[in-house]
Amino acid sequence: MVNQRADVGWQSSKSDSSGVSNSGESSKESSRCSTPVLDADRTDRLRDKMKRRIESGDHWFSLEFFPPRTASGAVNLISRFDRMGSGGPLFIDVTWHPSGDPGSDKETSSMMIASTAVNYCGLESVLHLTCCNQTKEKITAHLNKAKRLGLKNIMALRGDPIGEDWVEEDGGFNYATDLVKHIRCEFDDYFDICVAGYPTGHPEAESYDNDLRHLKEKVDAGAHFIVTQLFFRAETFLRFVKDCRAIGITCPILPGIFPIQGYHSLRQLVKLSKLEVPEEIMQVIEPIKDNDAAIRSYGIQQAVEMCKVLLASGEVPGLHFYTLNREVATIEVLRQLGLWAEDPRRPLPWAVSAHPKRKVEDVRPIFWASRPKSYIYRTQDWDDFPNGRWGNSSSPAFGELTDYYLFYLKSKSPKEALLQMWGEELMNEGSVYEVFTNYITGQTNPSGHKVMCLPWNDDALAPETNLLKDELEKVNRRGILTINSQPNINGKPSSDPIVGWGPAGGYVFQKAYLEFFTSSENVTALLQVLKKYEPRVNYHIVNVQGKNITNAHEMQPNAVTWGIFPGREIIQPTVVDPVSFMYWKDEAFALWIEQWVKLYEDESPSRMIIQYIHDNYFLVNLVDNDFPLDSCLWQVIEDMFALLDSPRATQEEGSQS
Amino acid sequence: MVNQRADVGWQSSKSDSSGVSNSGESSKESSRCSTPVLDADRTDRLRDKMKRRIESGDHWFSLEFFPPRTASGAVNLISRFDRMGSGGPLFIDVTWHPSGDPGSDKETSSMMIASTAVNYCGLESVLHLTCCNQTKEKITAHLNKAKRLGLKNIMALRGDPIGEDWVEEDGGFNYATDLVKHIRCEFDDYFDICVAGYPTGHPEAESYDNDLRHLKEKVDAGAHFIVTQLFFRAETFLRFVKDCRAIGITCPILPGIFPIQGYHSLRQLVKLSKLEVPEEIMQVIEPIKDNDAAIRSYGIQQAVEMCKVLLASGEVPGLHFYTLNREVATIEVLRQLGLWAEDPRRPLPWAVSAHPKRKVEDVRPIFWASRPKSYIYRTQDWDDFPNGRWGNSSSPAFGELTDYYLFYLKSKSPKEALLQMWGEELMNEGSVYEVFTNYITGQTNPSGHKVMCLPWNDDALAPETNLLKDELEKVNRRGILTINSQPNINGKPSSDPIVGWGPAGGYVFQKAYLEFFTSSENVTALLQVLKKYEPRVNYHIVNVQGKNITNAHEMQPNAVTWGIFPGREIIQPTVVDPVSFMYWKDEAFALWIEQWVKLYEDESPSRMIIQYIHDNYFLVNLVDNDFPLDSCLWQVIEDMFALLDSPRATQEEGSQS
Repeated sequence: MVNQRADVGWQSSKSDSSGVSNSGESSKESSRCSTPVLDADRTDRLRDKMKRRIESGDHWFSLEFFPPRTASGAVNLISRFDRMGSGGPLFIDVTWHPSGDPGSDKETSSMMIASTAVNYCGLESVLHLTCCNQTKEKITAHLNKAKRLGLKNIMALRGDPIGEDWVEEDGGFNYATDLVKHIRCEFDDYFDICVAGYPTGHPEAESYDNDLRHLKEKVDAGAHFIVTQLFFRAETFLRFVKDCRAIGITCPILPGIFPIQGYHSLRQLVKLSKLEVPEEIMQVIEPIKDNDAAIRSYGIQQAVEMCKVLLASGEVPGLHFYTLNREVATIEVLRQLGLWAEDPRRPLPWAVSAHPKRKVEDVRPIFWASRPKSYIYRTQDWDDFPNGRWGNSSSPAFGELTDYYLFYLKSKSPKEALLQMWGEELMNEGSVYEVFTNYITGQTNPSGHKVMCLPWNDDALAPETNLLKDELEKVNRRGILTINSQPNINGKPSSDPIVGWGPAGGYVFQKAYLEFFTSSENVTALLQVLKKYEPRVNYHIVNVQGKNITNAHEMQPNAVTWGIFPGREIIQPTVVDPVSFMYWKDEAFALWIEQWVKLYEDESPSRMIIQYIHDNYFLVNLVDNDFPLDSCLWQVIEDMFALLDSPRATQEEGSQS
Repeated sequence: MVNQRADVGWQSSKSDSSGVSNSGESSKESSRCSTPVLDADRTDRLRDKMKRRIESGDHWFSLEFFPPRTASGAVNLISRFDRMGSGGPLFIDVTWHPSGDPGSDKETSSMMIASTAVNYCGLESVLHLTCCNQTKEKITAHLNKAKRLGLKNIMALRGDPIGEDWVEEDGGFNYATDLVKHIRCEFDDYFDICVAGYPTGHPEAESYDNDLRHLKEKVDAGAHFIVTQLFFRAETFLRFVKDCRAIGITCPILPGIFPIQGYHSLRQLVKLSKLEVPEEIMQVIEPIKDNDAAIRSYGIQQAVEMCKVLLASGEVPGLHFYTLNREVATIEVLRQLGLWAEDPRRPLPWAVSAHPKRKVEDVRPIFWASRPKSYIYRTQDWDDFPNGRWGNSSSPAFGELTDYYLFYLKSKSPKEALLQMWGEELMNEGSVYEVFTNYITGQTNPSGHKVMCLPWNDDALAPETNLLKDELEKVNRRGILTINSQPNINGKPSSDPIVGWGPAGGYVFQKAYLEFFTSSENVTALLQVLKKYEPRVNYHIVNVQGKNITNAHEMQPNAVTWGIFPGREIIQPTVVDPVSFMYWKDEAFALWIEQWVKLYEDESPSRMIIQYIHDNYFLVNLVDNDFPLDSCLWQVIEDMFALLDSPRATQEEGSQS
């Protein structure tokens, strides 16, 4: 990680929510495309985002990560991206370790991790790249691959020379400047480029002044901003900025912040970076060196104090954090500084991918609401993404769900934890109903464990779904196994903390939606009942074989979430699309097998119960079109149970259908 | 008109408003386009519309017209299309008179009239075509032209041979059958084809049976439906249908209905058609032959009685009316039969063009709300029409408003009438304010005339605008010269008689909109006032030179009308589009000159007043984005006048801006 760093950003947050006349560049970009361009931050380049934040005086932060060593480490890092992304970093960056095959397709490579951050987590990301001992062809190949994967920003570094006997190569990459020049030469203006600055001078530089001149060369060669090596005193950085400005460096210079998190990690880092820890810090730390909690607490306090001075100086537009892939300290520092977005405004109800190809995308089927990464994966080869309207044009091209992808969707919980949550031994279908019910209620199951996830929901219940908790509990208890739902909303402010999304001053709307697995007996009664709700309720009912019963138009999507905003066209980010539903159906049924059946031994009763559900249950979705009225979907379910409770009625009416 | 007829249709009316699963063909058609396909009737072929209406037992009617002789006759006929189109015909048809240059580009040609009905009036139209004495090349050229103009239906006729010495040509077009075959051979399935049937046998046929066999040949050659010659007794038609069915003719057979409208027109028609008027009718008519009103009244009663018998027979899916280009009798018969749609459901807030190229169109700028024909004309060369979203892709290609087009937009009022309405002699700008105010209030002006139209509004105030009447009167009186407006609507049922549109079970919404000309003094104060209404109110303010003041995004349209429907995506049929507004501005300012200035002598004071307004006033549009609240636009105007009434304030604040 030493010598390698940068800064990155994410959501629109505060600066451009007015909807009024944006900058020239972003509107020129939109002049030939029919997208609402909900947020300039979604389409702008990193340098433009920085410019806008600097102009509005809106401080940002960015987060540096290194690639994980193991596959399960990768799964954990990706969920960390999701969690830390929600705090609103302007960007994240991923370091590059030449010895670790960083440009490969392995799940743990720098390239793959950065690409996942962009594509699946929607984070503006900077990929580090070192050039020392590399051929031009190899570097160009890396850059081409990065471009193809949707990466738009490069941290250009020399990298540590291997061995003591390193000498300059003629025409080779000897310094980061050479890499910056190469990127500009081969890729023109495509990449935003970051370079490293050394507030105390590069350890190998002849002098501090000489090092500053090298930095000026890097910037002059075409870098857009600077991220510095870590330091321990605010004045170190502020003097450095002053010196940079004095020799004509005008781009943003972002301080690298390292909250001390432990005695040994500090020692190691300092050694590698050839930095000196100031005496006043060592004096505090040495006495408590075996008390990790105390050191972390001090580290947080020290970082907060230093950052306050930096931000107050007026010289620092944003802070860059060396996270060491840990969350607690960095988030705490950001919280204390007031930079952590407690309630980041969502540009759309779902997390927007940061791949430039997808920048116009603003409509998705509701089915993947809890599995957005799966949706992104399965649509990654689309040439166009729906915007404004779903239409029917995008449906034929859903990709298969391959093993590779399932890796990134792998449950964060190990098999043992899953068995504790979902049952070591299932007695009957009722045991499964109980698992679903416990997931909804948050209560512990008989073996004393909480059900924190389901195959269709890797996270706890969304706040919005919580609004429906009581009703959901009631129906799951009786075998309506809900996997997706939303309440109806009739014009709540776009700033609503639970259901709001999009720019300020707007109104959001929803049609009530309910999606669940249930038995074929229930479906027979349900179909009877639904006749009474024509045409108010639209339904799609399908089993694993694809038997499909619907009262909806076979091609026409139903918009179930939409928003009205000042000075914009209507945005309708989620639809119930009949064609996509058939693709989703395969995935939803497969999850019974892939995630649940496989927990149990062959031929075991538990396994047979889940397999039976997979083979015989139907997947049902219901939309109540009458969004201004109270949702009738619960009444539909009530009516279904009432019908089932009067056996004669079922018999007679059933025979007429 | 003799020997030439057919049937045509228009709006969705009753049969397919449920939104539930349409026929296979229409959905296949929509499978690759991203359109909401609001109404199957909008995209289906005439034969499919008939099929659906027959299946649902929903009787229709159609209207036959002949081309006018003069240009002003054409203007009148086009407005008759608009008026009679509102009653919901399934189609209209336009006859073909070989001697009148029917395929030419003259405003009065059959081709141009039928094309106008399709493109500008949104009517499903059938063009008659006769083949007798025509070359194949000529016929093919006519058909190609018809196709290019958006016509999809042909009434294939032989036409009356010219002169007594007509003989069959070998390989030429001797009978309508030859024309049907030719159309099918050259244009495959492109055209829907109608042929003529003779309930009493063709006057030149050897026998009734022989004539039936000819009809069977025409149908077998590829005709889709039959329209009959007029007749006077229901049993004549019903026997004919029975005979047709007996020899295997299965397509729809539509009775030609001729409400007797006068003694002489009846005599003439009967003579040309070689028909006999039944004795019982002649006995009633002869005694009252000089009393037109009595004859018309009898004709209406006779037609109603006969139609009732026809419809009750179960053999008649629709009625075809020979209108003789008159409205009263036909509309009265239809009213009495309950077929005239008193409140035809609008598929969109504006009249949809029936040109196949425009079938996906469902978004337009609001500016042309009162001049839809101008909008259609100026966008006729577009390759794609906006659907779902306006975006910014369509704006660069607005065509110029040429003289040719102005013909079809020509005021129905002659110059004298316009002078009476708008003032023989204007005293000052206040005289102009009075004209606008009188248009709004419907009161007579000092010279005793009502102002029935303005250059920007050729018709009386829309019912929706009437909702704003009091407020509009108040502001026009003070020089806010309104030319377009709509109230805000927060979710009224789509069936609302005044503001409703689209399929049943939906909800419609609007943002309040106001567009007006006003003086530069007013604009200065208005801009002061508008600062208080940021970002709630979006405005565009522009003068004839194109000086443009706005607080809206320079490229982003603002949706001001939208609808939410069961099982569909959101429809947003009108937007305020900044780019289009600059094209509209030219047209709106030009109308001062083209329609008003030109009424007066050169150098006359009246002329100079209008010219002054044209040169110095601004065109302003205002949108109140907060549609759930009461519109604030009237308060904006109030505030503007309040500021103007306190001169010191204007002076001081004005100098700061």
